[in-house]
Amino acid sequence: MDTRTGLPVVGMVGGGQLARMTHQAAVALGQSLRVLSETPDDSAALVAADVRIGTHTDLAALREFAKGCDALTFDHEHVPTGHIAALAAEGVKIYPGAEAIVFAQDKRRMRERLSELGAPVPMWRPVSSAADIADFAAEVAAARTEAGGAVRTEAGGAAQAGTDSGAGWPVVAKAVRGGYDGRGVWMLADLAAAEELVATGTELIVEERVPLRRELAALVARSPFGQVAAYPVVETVQRDGICVEVLAPAPGLSEERALAAQQLAIDVAHALGVVGLLAVELFETEAGIVVNELAMRPHNSGHWTIEGARTSQFEQHLRAVLDYPMGETSLAAPAVVMANVLGGAPGGMTLDERLHHLFAADPGARVHLYGKQVRPGRKIGHVTVLGDDMTSVRARAVRAARWLQEGE
Amino acid sequence: MDTRTGLPVVGMVGGGQLARMTHQAAVALGQSLRVLSETPDDSAALVAADVRIGTHTDLAALREFAKGCDALTFDHEHVPTGHIAALAAEGVKIYPGAEAIVFAQDKRRMRERLSELGAPVPMWRPVSSAADIADFAAEVAAARTEAGGAVRTEAGGAAQAGTDSGAGWPVVAKAVRGGYDGRGVWMLADLAAAEELVATGTELIVEERVPLRRELAALVARSPFGQVAAYPVVETVQRDGICVEVLAPAPGLSEERALAAQQLAIDVAHALGVVGLLAVELFETEAGIVVNELAMRPHNSGHWTIEGARTSQFEQHLRAVLDYPMGETSLAAPAVVMANVLGGAPGGMTLDERLHHLFAADPGARVHLYGKQVRPGRKIGHVTVLGDDMTSVRARAVRAARWLQEGE
Repeated sequence: MDTRTGLPVVGMVGGGQLARMTHQAAVALGQSLRVLSETPDDSAALVAADVRIGTHTDLAALREFAKGCDALTFDHEHVPTGHIAALAAEGVKIYPGAEAIVFAQDKRRMRERLSELGAPVPMWRPVSSAADIADFAAEVAAARTEAGGAVRTEAGGAAQAGTDSGAGWPVVAKAVRGGYDGRGVWMLADLAAAEELVATGTELIVEERVPLRRELAALVARSPFGQVAAYPVVETVQRDGICVEVLAPAPGLSEERALAAQQLAIDVAHALGVVGLLAVELFETEAGIVVNELAMRPHNSGHWTIEGARTSQFEQHLRAVLDYPMGETSLAAPAVVMANVLGGAPGGMTLDERLHHLFAADPGARVHLYGKQVRPGRKIGHVTVLGDDMTSVRARAVRAARWLQEGE
Repeated sequence: MDTRTGLPVVGMVGGGQLARMTHQAAVALGQSLRVLSETPDDSAALVAADVRIGTHTDLAALREFAKGCDALTFDHEHVPTGHIAALAAEGVKIYPGAEAIVFAQDKRRMRERLSELGAPVPMWRPVSSAADIADFAAEVAAARTEAGGAVRTEAGGAAQAGTDSGAGWPVVAKAVRGGYDGRGVWMLADLAAAEELVATGTELIVEERVPLRRELAALVARSPFGQVAAYPVVETVQRDGICVEVLAPAPGLSEERALAAQQLAIDVAHALGVVGLLAVELFETEAGIVVNELAMRPHNSGHWTIEGARTSQFEQHLRAVLDYPMGETSLAAPAVVMANVLGGAPGGMTLDERLHHLFAADPGARVHLYGKQVRPGRKIGHVTVLGDDMTSVRARAVRAARWLQEGE
């Protein structure tokens, strides 16, 4: 409790843009987010009043950071579960807890647990050799033959599945731990590629390449009390494994499928005992939905909620970890699109000049810049546009992001 | 310019809730507001990363504070105009400038200037004696007789004008400098009251008591380039001289009168050379509108814009002082109501407990708490509700504010 205000103190481990935007939400609730940041120049450290410098792998630093916090939570999923469990054992309210967050850290355990729960997942298997991977590809091929259908490939897929080394290829290999934004994910075309990856010694699972129509995300928040709030299901558009656009609500998604996705996210949140936000990244196929990834924190697929929903995901996460009742999740406009701003090539106009031009070109675009050094491909901000018509809203958001990224 | 981000630095003099909410807006623009705060516990100082402790009357402190700022602006209107002029002469971009802000500091000069401009103002006069005030009351009475109409009183007015000491009474006396939130304004019923006030030595103007139907506010922002953006005209509801509710848009206001109010605010902004926000507080009478007060900063009548307009007044103020193009001002919902939360009587539930209850009762209410110590009558936060129907939206906002204020 902050004795100056009589209001709670939440500590967030990690000083990235998620902590930065959570601080903005904390300010409205009368709070000031406490941030554990690696450096004083991290995104959130530039704007928050209560910043401690330290590393998320340092238990002593975490312990010190937790003192006086009413709840501790995370900007990322890289805090060792052992540290989380140790702090919880010492009485720290730390959310999501070790038993939950492990499923966002460890893809193998996530797949195992979701399979147990009967949640829809791709065919998958833990592997430790190229032969395992080849066996898995053969299994996928057999299953597809059995299913009797022609192999479908995703819309923009470059390779026709099954053309290289057999009907089960390519397969998707994932590092069990540590991947994000497309890193730690490999599309393996054949046995040679599998051998090369296995030789790196990375602990892996493999998954079938799902014949997806598009990607969706279902975002829910759950409090320790067990209350859950579900946001409208969104479509996420990825490029090179990085989310570039989010469309809310997912255009043309049937109400039945939207409800199924929300129910799935709610069931997973309850089953895993998640406290705070849970983002369930989904593949939509002809047949339905399957779970791709889980994230247990404010998520890129929820940035649109800052203006586009009655309660932003950042406030919702704070409400959840503080066990406040959840906020309303309804849309603030019929169509909301968020487009990420990635760092562009150096040179040309400065970011400030680009911002001038964007504001002149589209006075209604909502800009969020993260205060980060511009590096090619790095997420340095996002833009949100609200309106009545998804097509025009999307065009505006994409154009706005391109302005900030490339200067024209 | 912040070399870490390549984005501008705005300094705001004063650490109150306006600076606090401006910081939230700055964060979205990739910035971090620099705050000159009287104490480390001021509302904005609790949440901003870049806080300097100092007083707005200390020129040396202001000079030091300005170093490295791309623009300087204010959380209040109490910085001496001489200091503002001195800094401007030294090359500091400081907005609004001394020539403009003086009209928000000095009610006599404001009335003189608006009269010159032909803007609608109440009958008024500078006074230095009780006899001056009595003369003014007689003049008001004569004007009313000449106008031939029966004397109108405002809706909730207790006294029939003219019953006490003559038809011109009561008159409104205002301190030329330093009043706010109802302080520095006196309703004088008769000569005896006038004598008592004059004896305090306060420099005064007097104004006729306008037969108002209600109060309105027109909020505009103007950039150094001269671009102006006008928000929808709102109704402001006052109690004991303090704004308690703001209804956006002003219910039942004719388009003609709304446009007249916006045009008036734009004309005043241009004529006075205002840079940043200008709030024109208005009385609406049967016949039209008259100017009550001017404020040149984010204003209580614009807090609804955080969720209720595409661009919040806080971002708009930053855009204006940085000479960015202005943002869109349109409403985000058909009906938006902001209700202030005033400090209630001590005892009973804590503020945190009240917040729990409010969130349970109304998951859609948007809460803004300022991190201030609760003192009776002090503005400690506000609540905003958006919806389709003004009556129900207003009822929800008022109820939410009452929850936070009184605990039930």
